[in-house]
Amino acid sequence: MHGLMMNYPLTLAQILAHAHRIHGDKQVHTLLPDGRVHRYSYAVLYGRVKRLANVLTGFGIRPGDRVATYAANTYQHLELYYAIPCIGAVLHPLNVRLAPTQLAEIVREAEDRLIFVDGAFAAQFAALQQHIDCPHTVIFNGASKMPVGAPLTRYEALISQADDTYAWEIQDENWAMGLCYTSGTSGEPRGVLYTHRSMFLHTLAVNQADAFGLTEADVVLPLVPMYHAMGWGLPYACMFVGADIVLPGAKPARERLVPPLCGGDNPLANLIAETGVTVAAGVPTVWAQAYPELRKRAQDISSLRQLIVGGEAMPPTLIEAYEKELGVEVRHAWGMTEMSPTGTLSTLRRAHQQLSDTEKWKVKAMQGRPVPGVEIRLATESGAELPWDGNTMGEVQVRSHWTARRYYKIEPTAEHFTTDGWLRTGDIATINAEGYMQIVDRAKTLIRSGGESISSVALEAALMKHPQVVEAAVIGVPDEKWGERPLAIIVLTQQADEGTPAALKQHLASEFPKFWIPDRFVFVDEIPKTSVGKSDKRAILAFL
Amino acid sequence: MHGLMMNYPLTLAQILAHAHRIHGDKQVHTLLPDGRVHRYSYAVLYGRVKRLANVLTGFGIRPGDRVATYAANTYQHLELYYAIPCIGAVLHPLNVRLAPTQLAEIVREAEDRLIFVDGAFAAQFAALQQHIDCPHTVIFNGASKMPVGAPLTRYEALISQADDTYAWEIQDENWAMGLCYTSGTSGEPRGVLYTHRSMFLHTLAVNQADAFGLTEADVVLPLVPMYHAMGWGLPYACMFVGADIVLPGAKPARERLVPPLCGGDNPLANLIAETGVTVAAGVPTVWAQAYPELRKRAQDISSLRQLIVGGEAMPPTLIEAYEKELGVEVRHAWGMTEMSPTGTLSTLRRAHQQLSDTEKWKVKAMQGRPVPGVEIRLATESGAELPWDGNTMGEVQVRSHWTARRYYKIEPTAEHFTTDGWLRTGDIATINAEGYMQIVDRAKTLIRSGGESISSVALEAALMKHPQVVEAAVIGVPDEKWGERPLAIIVLTQQADEGTPAALKQHLASEFPKFWIPDRFVFVDEIPKTSVGKSDKRAILAFL
Repeated sequence: MHGLMMNYPLTLAQILAHAHRIHGDKQVHTLLPDGRVHRYSYAVLYGRVKRLANVLTGFGIRPGDRVATYAANTYQHLELYYAIPCIGAVLHPLNVRLAPTQLAEIVREAEDRLIFVDGAFAAQFAALQQHIDCPHTVIFNGASKMPVGAPLTRYEALISQADDTYAWEIQDENWAMGLCYTSGTSGEPRGVLYTHRSMFLHTLAVNQADAFGLTEADVVLPLVPMYHAMGWGLPYACMFVGADIVLPGAKPARERLVPPLCGGDNPLANLIAETGVTVAAGVPTVWAQAYPELRKRAQDISSLRQLIVGGEAMPPTLIEAYEKELGVEVRHAWGMTEMSPTGTLSTLRRAHQQLSDTEKWKVKAMQGRPVPGVEIRLATESGAELPWDGNTMGEVQVRSHWTARRYYKIEPTAEHFTTDGWLRTGDIATINAEGYMQIVDRAKTLIRSGGESISSVALEAALMKHPQVVEAAVIGVPDEKWGERPLAIIVLTQQADEGTPAALKQHLASEFPKFWIPDRFVFVDEIPKTSVGKSDKRAILAFL
Repeated sequence: MHGLMMNYPLTLAQILAHAHRIHGDKQVHTLLPDGRVHRYSYAVLYGRVKRLANVLTGFGIRPGDRVATYAANTYQHLELYYAIPCIGAVLHPLNVRLAPTQLAEIVREAEDRLIFVDGAFAAQFAALQQHIDCPHTVIFNGASKMPVGAPLTRYEALISQADDTYAWEIQDENWAMGLCYTSGTSGEPRGVLYTHRSMFLHTLAVNQADAFGLTEADVVLPLVPMYHAMGWGLPYACMFVGADIVLPGAKPARERLVPPLCGGDNPLANLIAETGVTVAAGVPTVWAQAYPELRKRAQDISSLRQLIVGGEAMPPTLIEAYEKELGVEVRHAWGMTEMSPTGTLSTLRRAHQQLSDTEKWKVKAMQGRPVPGVEIRLATESGAELPWDGNTMGEVQVRSHWTARRYYKIEPTAEHFTTDGWLRTGDIATINAEGYMQIVDRAKTLIRSGGESISSVALEAALMKHPQVVEAAVIGVPDEKWGERPLAIIVLTQQADEGTPAALKQHLASEFPKFWIPDRFVFVDEIPKTSVGKSDKRAILAFL
């Protein structure tokens, strides 16, 4: 028997309309390259999004078409986050840190019909542009650096000429709204095609009081780039509750804002102080690097009440530092691009309130419990379910209303999806009786460096192409600053000389971004193997 | 283009499974008739719910069948809240305060195949039973008072004999999960048939930090009866986040727990103190009556951090008393049975923090802003949309993923639903520029007394049946204790004498519960009429 409730599609257009109607005066702040802060209201954003919708249809963009962005966290990118899906097209944020050849492959597969480019990345975009065949490019934030002859159109000119009325109509909540690529354990980038339904549900889920718990009173700073896993869903979560948004501007946050990279001044503390940030979201590397300076400026950043941390594990000592010294609550999350991305979150239970502080940080350093709507389980390689005893290790498998059921343009395989419809994450973990998950081993081949993924498989494949390389294994080794860095173990055809590492680095440089290049090369006679003939990376680690 | 995300039904079975798997040790507390508190864990509840599912199928209950409850807030009722919908059947909580003839009509229309009865209501249920033809009755909480000969089965005996394994399978999220009747402006009870989808979404929506904001650390006391608008969705909201639940037991809360009705002792304060209640939900009448005693026991009830208040307007002075004197935040909500029931909520905006206390209470006394996912608008009688200026009055119309699109077994009419698919609430309100709704006039004919609805239309129709009554109009007049009480304006065939009011009360007593009977009867020569010939209740109020 069917019920008799209203049943119309769950869409992002509803989030946009609600934000405009109920929270029209709330603010979006963007840090500009010159250090000033650009500000406008949701109401202004709404008007521009409607104009942008007309710009998109003017380019012939129709429901289902992919439209790419090549941009950092700015108000224009936020406008694109709404305009593209709300006309029924597919928002495809490109990871600006990927190498041009990698990205070109992704753009080809996605068949992007239009690319929006942040002028701050104009030079590096020009390198990409040689490899792709995208009909149109629109640029914002100053086009002065754009190579002459590139077929570009200016964003603001288009916006100002466009009509400011548009009637949103998403006919089906299962329409695709976004496409993000992930590089997983296999080294091949794989696309995740989100739906309006999945992102709407993800938004409600993360706004639960026990998840991100954002409110209208919050001022939220997403340091996580909007090209990473849909910016952790924050562009939608913030605006559905009516929080102010602070965008760190036209270059990746950690390069601009974090002291070791930006010199003596500390724009991050300044930005928090100036805009009254209450919640900030980013990877642990950012928070580790920023801590000393934030500690010095504790008075100035007293508005900050909470960090949302994900992308890699946050050490208990760092959680302690923020909670104890700065009074900032750390919400430690785990997820994947495939999961929109939120899976688990480590908040304390009522029962934990009686623990010692040290024990509390340990609980918070786990990846935590699934947010309502997410199911997790541990399984053996053959798929047998394992107990939640805090000791037994197994692969984490996930099911949720915001998890991918397959990859874009790739037939589902048993490597990634179980026959009963769960995602195989490739992460090895324990889960205790209270439902807290602890990742004990990463996906075997994935290296996480400063919040970015580096595929050892892809590096190995490239190294093997070098005429002097017989065999190569790349592993992640702990690094104080970046979390992990790649290290290459090489078997050569001949004796290595002092020029060999430089030659191999140069060989890789044409194919990968700088931060992918291994820092160290170790030359050996033989690489230990597992029983099935694969490089035994545990054994390699043991003899290093 | 369709996305590639998992797309399986949103169901209450997922809420149940999540509660069990992640929060198995959390507690359900029920106040017993003898004053002791019954306690068990979610894990125990889960086992019993599976047994209950087998009991239901043992009675031949199949997906779509309606199963009624005639019960207060107890752990058995909570078990029924899960077992019935999770086998695909329809949970139909009967309002125990309705008169037997009214309820019998509802049971007939619903075609309930089975009724679960709380023994505390056995005597009054016997009166209902004469009027209905329901195949089976199951009783819990002591059957000693049950009239001999009634075909009853004992709940615990059935549970103990049942198998404890059951595999939940809801094939379609649009399957009906619940049926609640409302008496609206027309006086006819109307059924609202909720779906798994609508209730799942309502659960995520109310658990937003800015809505009810419940967390795992909370201990929640729903004083609102579970037969009122699905207990405001709290049985699902609490268990999805893993909050402890405190159930006030086998009689309606206000009769047992509130001082004027329960004598010198104050079981409400005792219950809060004993179980550590942090959030309590109920109508303003309860909080008005409880306040003096709670004030005296402020130390004992210091765990209480928040009230969720709805069903009628909460006066600013009462909000102030709780917030200022007891440090308890009041979340003032508005909704309807048709809306699952949550529509709007009056929490302060960031911008309100600078207001004086008095101004803050005024904001909080409004019905507030729509929760994310709910759309509201103001319209004229002819459907023209009205501005949000804080002054213009119009009918409130609502659209949400958890609002009824039609009533059960009644063809939709223009009186209740607009042609573009919005619910006409019948409430007259203003909405200000910040999106705060203020109800200025109730649905013209509905009287709200102590959180209960009284239909003046139904009373008028019954009065007109009396041989001496020519004409009758019933209106709500303000009442310090109950909010509103019904008052009848009567035109008689002859002069009234001192026995007339008593005779009319007796005439109504056979058809309506005691609290529906008007306290006062005013005899007049003529009832003022509007231009369309209806009783002009504003004019009547003016000459009283």
